[in-house]
Amino acid sequence: MCELLGMSANVPTDICFSFTGLVQRGGHTGPHKDGWGITFYEGKGCRSFKDPAPSAESEIAKMVLNYPIKSCAVVSHIRQANRGGVSLENTHPFTRELWGENWTYAHNGQLKDYELLDTGFYHPIGQTDSELAFCWILEQLRQHYPQKPPQMQEVFGFIASLADQLRQLGVFNMLLSNGEYVMAYCSNNLHWITRRAPFGQARLQDADVTVDFQTQTTPDDVVTVVATQPLTSNESWQRMASGEYTVFYLGELVMNRVQAS
Amino acid sequence: MCELLGMSANVPTDICFSFTGLVQRGGHTGPHKDGWGITFYEGKGCRSFKDPAPSAESEIAKMVLNYPIKSCAVVSHIRQANRGGVSLENTHPFTRELWGENWTYAHNGQLKDYELLDTGFYHPIGQTDSELAFCWILEQLRQHYPQKPPQMQEVFGFIASLADQLRQLGVFNMLLSNGEYVMAYCSNNLHWITRRAPFGQARLQDADVTVDFQTQTTPDDVVTVVATQPLTSNESWQRMASGEYTVFYLGELVMNRVQAS
Repeated sequence: MCELLGMSANVPTDICFSFTGLVQRGGHTGPHKDGWGITFYEGKGCRSFKDPAPSAESEIAKMVLNYPIKSCAVVSHIRQANRGGVSLENTHPFTRELWGENWTYAHNGQLKDYELLDTGFYHPIGQTDSELAFCWILEQLRQHYPQKPPQMQEVFGFIASLADQLRQLGVFNMLLSNGEYVMAYCSNNLHWITRRAPFGQARLQDADVTVDFQTQTTPDDVVTVVATQPLTSNESWQRMASGEYTVFYLGELVMNRVQAS
Repeated sequence: MCELLGMSANVPTDICFSFTGLVQRGGHTGPHKDGWGITFYEGKGCRSFKDPAPSAESEIAKMVLNYPIKSCAVVSHIRQANRGGVSLENTHPFTRELWGENWTYAHNGQLKDYELLDTGFYHPIGQTDSELAFCWILEQLRQHYPQKPPQMQEVFGFIASLADQLRQLGVFNMLLSNGEYVMAYCSNNLHWITRRAPFGQARLQDADVTVDFQTQTTPDDVVTVVATQPLTSNESWQRMASGEYTVFYLGELVMNRVQAS
């Protein structure tokens, strides 16, 4: 299993506090020692930092923590390998172009019979079930919508129907973003929290770190964090149900299906 | 104009010395202040560091210099914007998947009438002539070779014929790699050097830095560096002719066409 971390915000926000908690689980407080990655959007562009080394020991993870990059959409992942060896090409998140946009994806879980999925144009580069499932999602999207449709809610509904199919093949918790929207699909393990004024203090579960968000925000800031397990011990996180999905835009929840039909 | 830097080596080699020289040209000894990027291959995976900030002032460039990443294939670029604004999505190198491989590309020059190029499946994400030309190259490759052919020399010959067409639209100096091969195509400005035993000292042109390669190498190491302008002042670089292309594999020159037919 792996752990996912995502963020959606209405102002460029650094994810250092949450990422500090997550990297502890990569070989320190958790067993996810087979690599980590994080993708930050900046306009239509995005930048990824990845390392097949455990995040708790990674020089690049330290660099990311010491140089806070502010973003409105972030997808991150720490890995405990099941399918596919420990290597850079098997390290999440994966980013591919669709409709002239960077789409970024990370998966937690394990699929069987995934080799049968037709990925069409999108060839996997690594050997993971995760990347192959991502290629399949993109191929289905491309076939269904040769052009980007005007209504993105329709698109995320369609993606959810694809995720429902993947969930039949095993465990499929997913984060997906095109830089504007951040979608979370829950198979068995995903939590989220939206922070807004009045901001308070938060204490990490995995490290002796407390942050007072009031000193780091303005009253209009809205920031949602999605994570496999709650990252803080003194806040109330929403637990997602099996088959539930959420879509966030600029920090706000804009779509929510609690249960697959 | 921009500056290109590429490396091909038979053992994982750090590019810190050459990159130290290049980043000086990004806003210090040169005018290329509109961003920079570098992509390192590691097996089938690759990692990119990019910043729309001038490289001479970039925190991320400092991180890359302080954390030497060893690789057998590297593509780097510093930018002086002509077409497309200064933003992350317009920052080279660009990486896209073809035949299940990461292909990485950087361009120096400027094209006219590039909007007419049919990029088919590959939609540009940013607004540069460079990325659009890359998408066109990939689309032509895909149409010509739906599967990866066994003879890569044939592929690079075909890519050169595409580059010949792009050169008709303006200035087209290019670096291109799939992680195994590094190709350099020269329109008007590109130099290369192969270093092998007996190794000597090299002195950067753009910074007061000298390196003794003999202390950093084994007798079997072969390392080729390609750059817009020679990076060192006491070595003999090969100047490429207009229409010439070179392909390097594990540091060795494996293809060379001196002039377009």
